[in-house]
Amino acid sequence: MEKLLCGVDLGGTKLAAALFKQDGTLIAKKLVYDHRKDSCDEVVQVIVELLGKLFRENGVDTARIAGIGTALAGHILYEEGKIITTSNFPVNMQGYPFADRLGAYFPGVKILLDNDANAQAYGEYKYGAGRGSGSLVFVTVSTGLGSGIILDGKVIRGQSGTAGEIGHCIVDYKSDVRCSCGNFGCAMALASGLFFPDLYSMYMKQGLYSTIDITEENVGQVDGRMILEGIRAEDPVSCAVAENSAVVVGTSLFNIFSMLDPELVVLGGGLMALGKDYIKRIIEEFHSHTHGMMYREMKIKLAETGADAGLLGAASLILEG
Amino acid sequence: MEKLLCGVDLGGTKLAAALFKQDGTLIAKKLVYDHRKDSCDEVVQVIVELLGKLFRENGVDTARIAGIGTALAGHILYEEGKIITTSNFPVNMQGYPFADRLGAYFPGVKILLDNDANAQAYGEYKYGAGRGSGSLVFVTVSTGLGSGIILDGKVIRGQSGTAGEIGHCIVDYKSDVRCSCGNFGCAMALASGLFFPDLYSMYMKQGLYSTIDITEENVGQVDGRMILEGIRAEDPVSCAVAENSAVVVGTSLFNIFSMLDPELVVLGGGLMALGKDYIKRIIEEFHSHTHGMMYREMKIKLAETGADAGLLGAASLILEG
Repeated sequence: MEKLLCGVDLGGTKLAAALFKQDGTLIAKKLVYDHRKDSCDEVVQVIVELLGKLFRENGVDTARIAGIGTALAGHILYEEGKIITTSNFPVNMQGYPFADRLGAYFPGVKILLDNDANAQAYGEYKYGAGRGSGSLVFVTVSTGLGSGIILDGKVIRGQSGTAGEIGHCIVDYKSDVRCSCGNFGCAMALASGLFFPDLYSMYMKQGLYSTIDITEENVGQVDGRMILEGIRAEDPVSCAVAENSAVVVGTSLFNIFSMLDPELVVLGGGLMALGKDYIKRIIEEFHSHTHGMMYREMKIKLAETGADAGLLGAASLILEG
Repeated sequence: MEKLLCGVDLGGTKLAAALFKQDGTLIAKKLVYDHRKDSCDEVVQVIVELLGKLFRENGVDTARIAGIGTALAGHILYEEGKIITTSNFPVNMQGYPFADRLGAYFPGVKILLDNDANAQAYGEYKYGAGRGSGSLVFVTVSTGLGSGIILDGKVIRGQSGTAGEIGHCIVDYKSDVRCSCGNFGCAMALASGLFFPDLYSMYMKQGLYSTIDITEENVGQVDGRMILEGIRAEDPVSCAVAENSAVVVGTSLFNIFSMLDPELVVLGGGLMALGKDYIKRIIEEFHSHTHGMMYREMKIKLAETGADAGLLGAASLILEG
């Protein structure tokens, strides 16, 4: 009988787990929101319970599972299945041997842990916009900004597993806009949702006037959805935030082209919901830089794996590793 | 009998060709300066004559040659041995089928053409600072700024051969400093020798005073050697140019780390002659950005293949391709 792929998406707000056929078809999925515990071991315990239910309800025993892939936002020591840093998880998971601890509950089952952008990149490569491509870079523009690099069918992870951090690449070395990593002028701090309050505030200080009742007091609530509403209401500050984000993402695509010359970039992440004009502006900015330097067109496509991209990506890692 | 490697370094000011043993030992080398002809075919003719002399004088026939590797500054379509753009060559070589034309004179001999940074990267990997490393990025800071990426022993060239262009990556997306590629804020335009006159002029306009008799009239002569003299004489403008160059190169190393997490970066190119303080400043700038993001130290070493780096790099490509 065909073995199944199991994916776990360990996010800051929700924990999801799912079973897929090897062709990417979703068999079953379960979600919980009470996984933010006080210790790493307790988090693993929640995952084990969730997987137990998922397997039982679908009449699947661990012998049917080809492996369990987990995706997490952060720096991951892939080979050892350890966590280096996490981006949006309250528990300090630094140095936690996640794969070993989860694996103890599922003897004989392959357990992999990877960065969420790497996982989604591989999911797009196997099942999404990257089918048929040998090499691609998946770029996710969301709360953060990240990427996963696939060359000749292999995820490029670097010596410790932290490659692909396009969001931490510096695109304005003289900037006074600070990223959560501590650096100034990272692409992430200038383009991603986490920094929309800072950017909104910055443009107001520069003299733009908010027409959607955002002030210095409530600017902390600004997120992608509010910027979308702002764009629709022609709020000048929201438009400036979105414009700057698109310019920085487009510039980052050009930097990816310059460094890796991939045949395809797949664009995904929650901020694609900002709409066609935003996406068009990203692509326009990219092309404004290529001039005579691009001999073969770098294709840019939108991600196709949809709402379950994180889960499917995590599960797909089993086919690579 | 052991076959020999032949390297050709096709530069803007000189053309060199050399024979090496497979262990990298130089057997013989020849140089000419009259290769800047009116057509690509004539340039190839000069190369053929130079190689003919080199082979005859060393009693080597083409059956002894494992292959001829040529390195050129520019964008190269590696698989087809064609030139896309050149950076410092007066003849328009765009689209020229270099490998085919050179190969017509040496039937049965493997002919390869590659970007000079890729060639030097592979030379460092085989014979220089990269011996024993699986992956490295070679960064050359010279008239231009370029890099060559080697992952698991293979040069990463991208879909058309133009990967590794760290110099064209944008590190200041709001900059008004223009690069020869047409873009603003490329690392190359802010760090490499070709742009020292522009940068010197910019700092003078910003109010720094030259103490080495450089004015708007003669600023065009500013090059790496003059900046070195300027640093020694504590000229404030020269020091500002060197400081900015080091900061931009250090930032570029951090961007390389973020994207590729390589175990090693090898630093080379003519501007390393700016001295220990310049190199120290590059490395210091790199480390100022890494914070908790670097789990395993990215080693930074100086290039070791020396004066014949271009030739040895070109020749070494034969062992890869």
